Amino acid sequence: MELFAVPDLPEVRPGHDLAALIRERADLGPDDVVCVASTVVSKSEGRSADLAEFPAGPRAREIAANLEERTGEKTDPRFAQAVLEESVEVLLETPFLLTETRFGHIGVNAGIDRSNLSDGDLLLLPERPSESAARIREGLPADRVIVTDTCGRPFREGQRGVGIGWAGLAPGRDWRGETDRGGRELSVAVENVVDELAAAANLLAGEGDGGTPVVVVRDFEWGDHGEHDAHFREVETDVVRRAIRAWSSE
Amino acid sequence: MELFAVPDLPEVRPGHDLAALIRERADLGPDDVVCVASTVVSKSEGRSADLAEFPAGPRAREIAANLEERTGEKTDPRFAQAVLEESVEVLLETPFLLTETRFGHIGVNAGIDRSNLSDGDLLLLPERPSESAARIREGLPADRVIVTDTCGRPFREGQRGVGIGWAGLAPGRDWRGETDRGGRELSVAVENVVDELAAAANLLAGEGDGGTPVVVVRDFEWGDHGEHDAHFREVETDVVRRAIRAWSSE
Ligand SMILES: Nc1nc2c(ncn2[C@@H]2O[C@H](COP(=O)(O)OP(=O)(O)O)[C@@H](O)[C@H]2O)c(=O)[nH]1
Ligand SMILES: Nc1nc2c(ncn2[C@@H]2O[C@H](COP(=O)(O)OP(=O)(O)O)[C@@H](O)[C@H]2O)c(=O)[nH]1
Ligand SMILES: [Mn+2]
Ligand SMILES: [Mn+2]
Ligand SMILES: [Mn+2]
Ligand SMILES: [Mn+2]
Repeated sequence: MELFAVPDLPEVRPGHDLAALIRERADLGPDDVVCVASTVVSKSEGRSADLAEFPAGPRAREIAANLEERTGEKTDPRFAQAVLEESVEVLLETPFLLTETRFGHIGVNAGIDRSNLSDGDLLLLPERPSESAARIREGLPADRVIVTDTCGRPFREGQRGVGIGWAGLAPGRDWRGETDRGGRELSVAVENVVDELAAAANLLAGEGDGGTPVVVVRDFEWGDHGEHDAHFREVETDVVRRAIRAWSSE
Repeated sequence: MELFAVPDLPEVRPGHDLAALIRERADLGPDDVVCVASTVVSKSEGRSADLAEFPAGPRAREIAANLEERTGEKTDPRFAQAVLEESVEVLLETPFLLTETRFGHIGVNAGIDRSNLSDGDLLLLPERPSESAARIREGLPADRVIVTDTCGRPFREGQRGVGIGWAGLAPGRDWRGETDRGGRELSVAVENVVDELAAAANLLAGEGDGGTPVVVVRDFEWGDHGEHDAHFREVETDVVRRAIRAWSSE
């Protein structure tokens, strides 16, 4: 399996055809998995915004005041408003604003970035990243596209690449029903390959000014295994989320 | 960047010299990162065990009864006892047993596997995986070794590869103090490359009877960035963990 970053991509602007930009710079085949950082997907989709577009309501003002009190860091209530507008549920208000986005992803600040922008103060995540992935895929000879982001998680330090949208592959490689080397049932049921591919791609994309938002994974073999469609957990199967809900509503 | 699985590894037995087994089958250089599945590290370290070695105390019996009632699945109290003995804190008792292991990793059943074993009923994680990684590294021409496992996480479906031990590299690539393409501060501070490398390796190792527990990552470049030593979160910085504690002690 080989990974390489697509070279010489320009600063991405609203309306740019990402697939065309990629196609012109990389010789892709159908089996390649193309991992595209959400930053450039958002830019191409015009998801830059200004704080002025988010006049803060009472909830946002309360959240910002709360955050500022708890963390000592200046928080713009309009930023909290932007996060609220991108979200369907607030999981935590402090010490950071953790929400579920409209497309089901749980992340700090609804994944709104304040770095690597070209215009405006904010860069919102793509509205429907799997639809973005499908659109990019249509313009590429590659059959599989993943839209990635970098974010943190409980229990483990540091942030890592994850997939937030995907097209042409299922998020999960399903090992159920298969047996181990001794003929026994496997402990691991479903492996989330979309997240594993995104993590791998992030090692090359980086977080800084590298200018490498697109990473190609070549010769990844799915193998003779089933597929599993779920990627974001439903509340029902997410004990940790229920614990957070109960705790933060105290 | 390139990844390949080390071919033709035998069934690993207690006392096997993993470094020698790897060295004989792969032509490694100093820059390679060698990712070794915890299963084979445990096997080589004699961490197979039998349920009979874990006579259940009252706490284990209570946990097993509780689990059985909640999930409807038969649970051996001796298995709960084994998990308790591997752990320093129980985070959740149901619907699954989530604990912190003695070396700081949070996982279901303290990472005890019941698949891909060669002897016994259980395979415990290595006692100190970073020490295992350092030992393996000593016998290899490669400068960096990661001991991996596959496990689940909150918010996202499916399991993915993570690093539970490491030697010759820091877990985190530190982006603090660097600037983005526009000269602004980065949103992402520390990237956990050990977990990203482990996730990438897991795409080739797989979960089944593939017989590929060792994956080499070649030409990964750290770049001109700092290092960050923390890998497992401390309770103080882990809000989610505090939420679970409060919730499960209700
Ligand atoms: N060529 C190019 N690279 C960009 C652009 N925006 C961001 N990048 C690069 O994309 C990579 C990922 O950026 P990051 O801000 O971490 O994206 P995120 O993980 O999706 O939030 C880094 O190498 C950035 O330098 C752009 O408009 N053009
Ligand atoms: N050659 C060889 N492969 C093994 C052995 N034990 C497990 N494996 C393989 O190692 C890979 C990872 O196994 P898994 O049980 O998922 O390990 P874990 O992720 O560390 O829990 C799979 O390809 C297994 O078939 C062994 O003793 N010898
Ligand atoms: Mn981002
Ligand atoms: Mn990033
Ligand atoms: Mn395991
Ligand atoms: Mn595994």
